Amino acid sequence: MSEPITLIQPEWIVPVEPALTVLRDHDIAIAGELIVELLPRAAAEERYPQAQRIPLPGHLLTPGLVNLHTHSSMALLRGVGDDMALKPWLEERIWPLEARLMSPEFVFDGAVLACDEMLRGGITCFNDMYFFPEAVADAARALGMRASLGIIVVDFPSAYGSGAADYLRKGLELRDRLDDDRLMTFCLAPHAPYSVSDENLRQVTTLANELGLPIHIHVHETAQELTDSIKRYGVRPLARLDELGLVGPDTIAVHAVHTSAAELDLLAERGVSIAHCPHSNLKLGSGIAPAAEWLERGINVGLGTDGSASNNRLDLLGEARTAALLAKGSSGRADIWNAHQLLHTLTLAGARALGLGDRIGSLEAAKSADMVAFDLRGNELQPVYDPVSQLIHAAGRAAAAEVWVAGRHVVQMRQLRAQSAQTLTTEVVARTRMWQNRISDILSGNSAP
Amino acid sequence: MSEPITLIQPEWIVPVEPALTVLRDHDIAIAGELIVELLPRAAAEERYPQAQRIPLPGHLLTPGLVNLHTHSSMALLRGVGDDMALKPWLEERIWPLEARLMSPEFVFDGAVLACDEMLRGGITCFNDMYFFPEAVADAARALGMRASLGIIVVDFPSAYGSGAADYLRKGLELRDRLDDDRLMTFCLAPHAPYSVSDENLRQVTTLANELGLPIHIHVHETAQELTDSIKRYGVRPLARLDELGLVGPDTIAVHAVHTSAAELDLLAERGVSIAHCPHSNLKLGSGIAPAAEWLERGINVGLGTDGSASNNRLDLLGEARTAALLAKGSSGRADIWNAHQLLHTLTLAGARALGLGDRIGSLEAAKSADMVAFDLRGNELQPVYDPVSQLIHAAGRAAAAEVWVAGRHVVQMRQLRAQSAQTLTTEVVARTRMWQNRISDILSGNSAP
Repeated sequence: MSEPITLIQPEWIVPVEPALTVLRDHDIAIAGELIVELLPRAAAEERYPQAQRIPLPGHLLTPGLVNLHTHSSMALLRGVGDDMALKPWLEERIWPLEARLMSPEFVFDGAVLACDEMLRGGITCFNDMYFFPEAVADAARALGMRASLGIIVVDFPSAYGSGAADYLRKGLELRDRLDDDRLMTFCLAPHAPYSVSDENLRQVTTLANELGLPIHIHVHETAQELTDSIKRYGVRPLARLDELGLVGPDTIAVHAVHTSAAELDLLAERGVSIAHCPHSNLKLGSGIAPAAEWLERGINVGLGTDGSASNNRLDLLGEARTAALLAKGSSGRADIWNAHQLLHTLTLAGARALGLGDRIGSLEAAKSADMVAFDLRGNELQPVYDPVSQLIHAAGRAAAAEVWVAGRHVVQMRQLRAQSAQTLTTEVVARTRMWQNRISDILSGNSAP
Repeated sequence: MSEPITLIQPEWIVPVEPALTVLRDHDIAIAGELIVELLPRAAAEERYPQAQRIPLPGHLLTPGLVNLHTHSSMALLRGVGDDMALKPWLEERIWPLEARLMSPEFVFDGAVLACDEMLRGGITCFNDMYFFPEAVADAARALGMRASLGIIVVDFPSAYGSGAADYLRKGLELRDRLDDDRLMTFCLAPHAPYSVSDENLRQVTTLANELGLPIHIHVHETAQELTDSIKRYGVRPLARLDELGLVGPDTIAVHAVHTSAAELDLLAERGVSIAHCPHSNLKLGSGIAPAAEWLERGINVGLGTDGSASNNRLDLLGEARTAALLAKGSSGRADIWNAHQLLHTLTLAGARALGLGDRIGSLEAAKSADMVAFDLRGNELQPVYDPVSQLIHAAGRAAAAEVWVAGRHVVQMRQLRAQSAQTLTTEVVARTRMWQNRISDILSGNSAP
């Protein structure tokens, strides 16, 4: 027997595919996890007279946003590393803190806090890189969110494991364990060229080819990274990654702030995706990424929030606005990256980078019903000449009112809908006070090592 | 008889002056328009046992934000000029639209929409530049907002008047008329060096000196402006303004994106204030202002949203975050413009630029009670290591929960508090649909000229 139909009835639907389409007074019919079809309201009423209806006057329905790069658990470290550059931030602040805190409990609580924030901001899928990915998976599953989990690879040991081989083994085991959960997918996640040896990177290449997994890696984030690589390896990081077989269509290059024209040509030619994280790049003083040149070359660019310790806000819609403004301002070309292109960047581009372009990222029949309805009725959003411009340039994430992941209505009127999800986040927010005290003690040197 | 005392009881108070101060569990006692004192909660309970109490757990109280540059009425043009550079944006889109629309009704309705947005985002004072400033004043007064009104000067005629002399006469008359309204103050507002003749600029200088008024002017916004000025006058605009006597401590230079080291030295030496509008500069492709160099020179920098047609969001808190991130990212110095400095920029710096530094901009005894309470209790704002960092880098304007202007509680639980203000904004939002239809018709060429 077929699943019952629900009709979502917003004022506007922007399906992203076909491009530049704004449907007015259309319904989207969903059943179970999937989109059945998009059709004019009158036709929908006639074809599905028995369907449940969800009228959303003044709302814009779009595909769910895809956060292409984050370390969700760092939500517990929100604001501990302001006003520091990447290297001291990592070496003097973040890594020492993580060394003291790392545990499944820390990772789970941070990820719950992050998932709650992301979902209520219209993000339905996130690409994570962190230790204890099983704890991130538990958080995402508990809140009904789609996640691409990082099988992390880094040379140094941690509470999670003894080193690269151990991390890989554990990550692959998790992947087997979650094989039947369609919301959980995986990337190989070597941390960065500077923190993973040639041998371990080669192992990543082998596994990626064998298993058909995307590779999620920080690349060319700072000028210092390039200098250090030349000193240590005689070449820039991208050249080294290329030699090791990591520059291909399944690669997600995070940041790519410092890239020469030849390197950009290489990325374009190989079909590499870029995860652009403008707030993090700016906040750490890393620089301004050459986004106009990426777009010119047709590189697939998605957006990432990065973690809360370098942002400090997991707000992908805000990231999109900054991406557009920064590209216009730094290139002097006011015409680039218009709002419609930005919505593609926020959704389908991210989905494609994760190898999920056939399942999510646009509102089309037979795709998964991962969707957000933005309420554009606020006084501060009037008048609405173009709902997509309004979404990118005027609305904030607070406009995200209703969210569905794989057909499940997870956010309703800006709140998590399931009682279990509400209870869990309340518990975690209460525990956050404990984490805060502990972390504050470490920061002030008051705690035993 | 003395006015009754009200005790506001937030979790944190950041008075801005003295700098870097965070008061925890303190009360602020206000009476009538004024701040009486700040004191520890226990002491306040003892000293003012009869006072009305407003407990605000989890809230951060700061001075009201000062929007140092806007054209508030352009709220009705929000989103009509996306993806265009300043010159075509002005000449092909904004000026032709304004020529068709300009009227006291257009200016009033746009300003009401803008004041509602600004107030609910924590802005208590705005510095406006537009035609029909009396209509802007009416809007601000109706909503209980403080305004610095521009006595506009521009060479071309409009529905408002026949030219510079007429604009000056009307603006000065308005100033006389509103002499007894302490919330309404004035700037002379010559539009820009390229739109005001030497003769008219000289007249501005004379009046500014005579009347002790600040001068509010767009300066060095785009590279094109410099080229055009050299062609027409043989010098860059700042040099010309300097010759005409407009570069002094009462000058508010808006934008100042393209400025040489010598020009920055001049601005610093003369005590000019800068109204920094990063979103507008980026969106119009004007460039990235050298904010790090302003700060290094100790120039007084405030923030402006600019108008809704080039932003498209009158969100000064968001402007501050972008200002910080952009300064860090473009200079490569992650350590500059920390959150406490930003809060000073948002408040006291703007107040000083307007000549109001002795009345608003910080929470001190005998100053006006212009204040905002930001609710930092949202899940997405946990944990709170430093409430000021959280305000600037994590919270959005949606956290602005309670707002006072001159002791009057104008926003309560994120809504305008006065019934009259609510009624007016509801009426104006309804009329916005009419404006939208009319403007859409003009844009699509469907309306008679």
